[in-house]
Amino acid sequence: MPLDIALLNANTTVAMTDRMVARAAARLGPRATVRGLTAPFGAPYISDRAASAAAAHAVAEMTAALRADPPDVAIIACFGDPGLWAARELVAFPVAGMAEASMLTACQMGRRFGIVTGGPAWKPMLEEFAAACGLASRLAGVRALPITGAEIAADPAAATGRLIDAARAGVAEDGADVIILGGAALVGLRDVVAAAIAAPVVDSLDCALAQAEALAGLAACSR
Amino acid sequence: MPLDIALLNANTTVAMTDRMVARAAARLGPRATVRGLTAPFGAPYISDRAASAAAAHAVAEMTAALRADPPDVAIIACFGDPGLWAARELVAFPVAGMAEASMLTACQMGRRFGIVTGGPAWKPMLEEFAAACGLASRLAGVRALPITGAEIAADPAAATGRLIDAARAGVAEDGADVIILGGAALVGLRDVVAAAIAAPVVDSLDCALAQAEALAGLAACSR
Amino acid sequence: MPLDIALLNANTTVAMTDRMVARAAARLGPRATVRGLTAPFGAPYISDRAASAAAAHAVAEMTAALRADPPDVAIIACFGDPGLWAARELVAFPVAGMAEASMLTACQMGRRFGIVTGGPAWKPMLEEFAAACGLASRLAGVRALPITGAEIAADPAAATGRLIDAARAGVAEDGADVIILGGAALVGLRDVVAAAIAAPVVDSLDCALAQAEALAGLAACSR
Amino acid sequence: MPLDIALLNANTTVAMTDRMVARAAARLGPRATVRGLTAPFGAPYISDRAASAAAAHAVAEMTAALRADPPDVAIIACFGDPGLWAARELVAFPVAGMAEASMLTACQMGRRFGIVTGGPAWKPMLEEFAAACGLASRLAGVRALPITGAEIAADPAAATGRLIDAARAGVAEDGADVIILGGAALVGLRDVVAAAIAAPVVDSLDCALAQAEALAGLAACSR
Amino acid sequence: MPLDIALLNANTTVAMTDRMVARAAARLGPRATVRGLTAPFGAPYISDRAASAAAAHAVAEMTAALRADPPDVAIIACFGDPGLWAARELVAFPVAGMAEASMLTACQMGRRFGIVTGGPAWKPMLEEFAAACGLASRLAGVRALPITGAEIAADPAAATGRLIDAARAGVAEDGADVIILGGAALVGLRDVVAAAIAAPVVDSLDCALAQAEALAGLAACSR
Amino acid sequence: MPLDIALLNANTTVAMTDRMVARAAARLGPRATVRGLTAPFGAPYISDRAASAAAAHAVAEMTAALRADPPDVAIIACFGDPGLWAARELVAFPVAGMAEASMLTACQMGRRFGIVTGGPAWKPMLEEFAAACGLASRLAGVRALPITGAEIAADPAAATGRLIDAARAGVAEDGADVIILGGAALVGLRDVVAAAIAAPVVDSLDCALAQAEALAGLAACSR
Repeated sequence: MPLDIALLNANTTVAMTDRMVARAAARLGPRATVRGLTAPFGAPYISDRAASAAAAHAVAEMTAALRADPPDVAIIACFGDPGLWAARELVAFPVAGMAEASMLTACQMGRRFGIVTGGPAWKPMLEEFAAACGLASRLAGVRALPITGAEIAADPAAATGRLIDAARAGVAEDGADVIILGGAALVGLRDVVAAAIAAPVVDSLDCALAQAEALAGLAACSR
Repeated sequence: MPLDIALLNANTTVAMTDRMVARAAARLGPRATVRGLTAPFGAPYISDRAASAAAAHAVAEMTAALRADPPDVAIIACFGDPGLWAARELVAFPVAGMAEASMLTACQMGRRFGIVTGGPAWKPMLEEFAAACGLASRLAGVRALPITGAEIAADPAAATGRLIDAARAGVAEDGADVIILGGAALVGLRDVVAAAIAAPVVDSLDCALAQAEALAGLAACSR
Repeated sequence: MPLDIALLNANTTVAMTDRMVARAAARLGPRATVRGLTAPFGAPYISDRAASAAAAHAVAEMTAALRADPPDVAIIACFGDPGLWAARELVAFPVAGMAEASMLTACQMGRRFGIVTGGPAWKPMLEEFAAACGLASRLAGVRALPITGAEIAADPAAATGRLIDAARAGVAEDGADVIILGGAALVGLRDVVAAAIAAPVVDSLDCALAQAEALAGLAACSR
Repeated sequence: MPLDIALLNANTTVAMTDRMVARAAARLGPRATVRGLTAPFGAPYISDRAASAAAAHAVAEMTAALRADPPDVAIIACFGDPGLWAARELVAFPVAGMAEASMLTACQMGRRFGIVTGGPAWKPMLEEFAAACGLASRLAGVRALPITGAEIAADPAAATGRLIDAARAGVAEDGADVIILGGAALVGLRDVVAAAIAAPVVDSLDCALAQAEALAGLAACSR
Repeated sequence: MPLDIALLNANTTVAMTDRMVARAAARLGPRATVRGLTAPFGAPYISDRAASAAAAHAVAEMTAALRADPPDVAIIACFGDPGLWAARELVAFPVAGMAEASMLTACQMGRRFGIVTGGPAWKPMLEEFAAACGLASRLAGVRALPITGAEIAADPAAATGRLIDAARAGVAEDGADVIILGGAALVGLRDVVAAAIAAPVVDSLDCALAQAEALAGLAACSR
Repeated sequence: MPLDIALLNANTTVAMTDRMVARAAARLGPRATVRGLTAPFGAPYISDRAASAAAAHAVAEMTAALRADPPDVAIIACFGDPGLWAARELVAFPVAGMAEASMLTACQMGRRFGIVTGGPAWKPMLEEFAAACGLASRLAGVRALPITGAEIAADPAAATGRLIDAARAGVAEDGADVIILGGAALVGLRDVVAAAIAAPVVDSLDCALAQAEALAGLAACSR
């Protein structure tokens, strides 16, 4: 029976939800069905602490609403994972977060990981999130492009070169062994970035899907 | 000219706002006027991560609304400081938080501080907040009563004995040099607790007011 | 096409390898084939640092030998993960470790995890391993029974009560939100332990299999 | 009734004491009277560990002598706070330190603070002091000019450009959100430095006065 | 040629200096001559932060005076090492500290060390010193008897039982692998304590002498 | 009676053992006799994690074999100290490690130490080792030359310039107060490097010998 995954976009942009659901469906195939939910309030593209606070609230509400029809696993599909721990308090099914899943996955691929994402306000927020996860010593550095996720999503091709430069600097200057491409806006760009640099590169949605399957599998065997 | 202080209650309970404003007015006298604002949505008494996430959103919205008529300083009047850093990003005037202000004040009174508050879910949340402030090594321990802030506020006299026991354990077992009574519900109970134990005891609203005056004074001299 | 998993038992006991391969086959079904390899030298049951050093050497040699016929993913099937990082340096395919996989999985299920295992010498070794992974702040505590893994494997039923007591103490005294049952000797005992305590309980081999699938899936999509 | 503040200069230079008392009087006006005390032995300008050790001794002796006529609050008016914790052990009234007060104040204005001061030997000493306060993760960096506090005090105008350069580097290279101008010698230079850079800039004596008022106010309400 | 060791007693009690010099002479024999120096001011037995501050000043002055006739190596013979880093800044010859030497030696004998000493005020001071040395993770705990070093020195036989109890608790409750008997007052009691407990026990003066010889030997070969 | 020292070369290169034994004999003279042992399996020059794992195994076996004729003290003569803690578990006599001894010695000579060695794979391994010793905050940085220890040993003169450059960068860029020349291949090069830079420079074998004598002396007095 296919896994029932709820993908919660913490941004209010439906097109972003659709793109992530499509990507998830393409990767998981018949192994899963994916329900996409979009934040009912907040920002189209989260790019500061205030928008992230609204998103955490929206995630908590979306997660609580899932109790009426619980999925096998939920994914907070916003890199930075607003509301992740609140969501986990609310429900019995497992909840994965894109940033947490990416960092924990990357920890199994190298000693230190670097993060490449869009929007300069995310740099301190992600450093703080890594520290809150206990992973400050594993984080080589965050490279947040001066353009936002919204701008990357609007013209991914134009952003690719800058992402490659940031990934290279993460390896060469920050000492990263693995690069995480973080954020919904970067979904789909991994292959072209990976082709251009030597270290492994992972996409944050791919990692979240992989960890969601891992958590759901363990939960299933626990019943 | 008196200081213009905006006191933002992150809970939705107006009576709690009123009690804090009254306490603030009694302490500051003619030095300040205090505007009380109450969260327009969220929980009457925050007691879990989901309510705290909603509160952070409400705080961000209340703070942004203050831009139309900025105070000299704002106080996030909820121990745990939901939305504190989001609020700081939104405005030019200083913003104090009850938990942060209490911890920083207590750091000047002893090597390690203990926190006594209501509601068991706050223990990990406050440990995480202290760590996020860099103060994990200064925190002796959090003693969160099994009753919530709401229950303490409903019958403070009944709670006093339990608060005294928790404060004593904080000193004797956790090694605290100073005790912070944290939360709006505990406002007004400091004197009776302090009288019963040897170590210094501070109230979180008093600390927030003191730090708000300190920050506002520095901001004024900066102009 | 089923996943080709190499399960490397770092102990020299073939029966333990067989039991783990059987468990893996039962859990993964047609999704994977599992090749079991047993350490050609070292200790039947690793229970001190010297045996762990020999095991790390054996793991490195077994992993290097896999280069002739690389699997999709390898698992270091010994809780404590001897030779994990050496193995990763030697091959291009992903390598999972039982302890690392368990800790990273547990981090997604609660703020702090406790470890229950057999053999008192493992307590400092596992504390050091958690710290080396950056996860010291996430570890609530290690409860290592005074009997070794070998003794548990010889008479699992007799050990169950002690495991349950240790798991309960991990939750009640150490503050663990999740309990990891660590070690090959404990495989198969999760359900009875989980039934007896309130917090989630995970088995270390189950976690390693889940993370191995996650890593292999990401590696496949990278090609 | 005005606050009775004892300002303890840990250096032996009376002119420095006088300048700080004058600055304090100008800032606090009728709210306080300020008694200036100058170290009876030690160095005119502390610029190494040996002088700092002598200063800590002098501070302890000056503080103990205050017991005959206790002020409302004392300030250790030397950035680096020699003898701060010894002083606190000796008396019941609160004691503020210039460096501690500055760091705790700055923590409420930004995620990470930078320190600009004079005298290269202070860089490791202040890094160690920040770590001892638990604030290593909040410290962006210390920029200690190659000229000493004595040289800055002798010709402040000549030093201003170097201070501005150091403050800019603290923001641009070290990632500081707030800059602390540390030390008696830099008192009076804040406005010109602040005018030249984007981030907030605080003076260490101003911070000490603000925290001294905060601590004295809390102590008063405790009686 | 025998090593020329300057033993600096940071307390003002000459009899304590003499006892330590005698112990040193007995241990080192013809390998060294030992000059005993006693602090010219400060406390007979350091038991709080104020006395420790005075001692650091005295140590700096005694060390500076040694420049007229430099020894091969100096030892700060007071557990807690007041003025250690100031002394190192002042002279070219190596300087060992009793607490630092003990901790670094003990690190080579076990994963975690416990400290047993006299005088309750030393507990936080030694915890802070260990942290300042970077060794917080290696410290199992400090057990400071409620009696001071002075009282132990006055009647060592009476104190022995309490020291043994504290050492046992350090092993059994704090998890220490090695016990350090810290302080001049405990010199000579190691053998009787060691005979009563299972873990290794080291005396702080013995450790300081051993590290002084090590440092002097390296300095000699550097010339 | 001379000290009986067992020097365990964790590499398989006998010429390296001989050179280290000769150096030890030259430094210790009649104070000690030195038995050189060479790893019976593993790599001629350890330069990656797999070789280090084999070396740890070899060290454990060599140490266990010493139980038949125990020396006064053993030295793991390979910078990185493979098998150090396993060896300590196996025997009652003290065991010193070259990297541990160097770091602990250097801690007594400056606030932060830098490491210069050969072979790029050693950089993360030594950073991890320093962290495992609790000394991450004392490590200024590791400078691992792109040439291996084997290449340095083959033509030391050619490597000297690069070692001096690395040592200088350790001081000027990393902020090291002391430089450790790490590794058997660098034995004998200390004087020429030390002559070229301002900060103290120590050789890792010299430090291991000094700490071995210190530990043996303490163990002797314990009997």
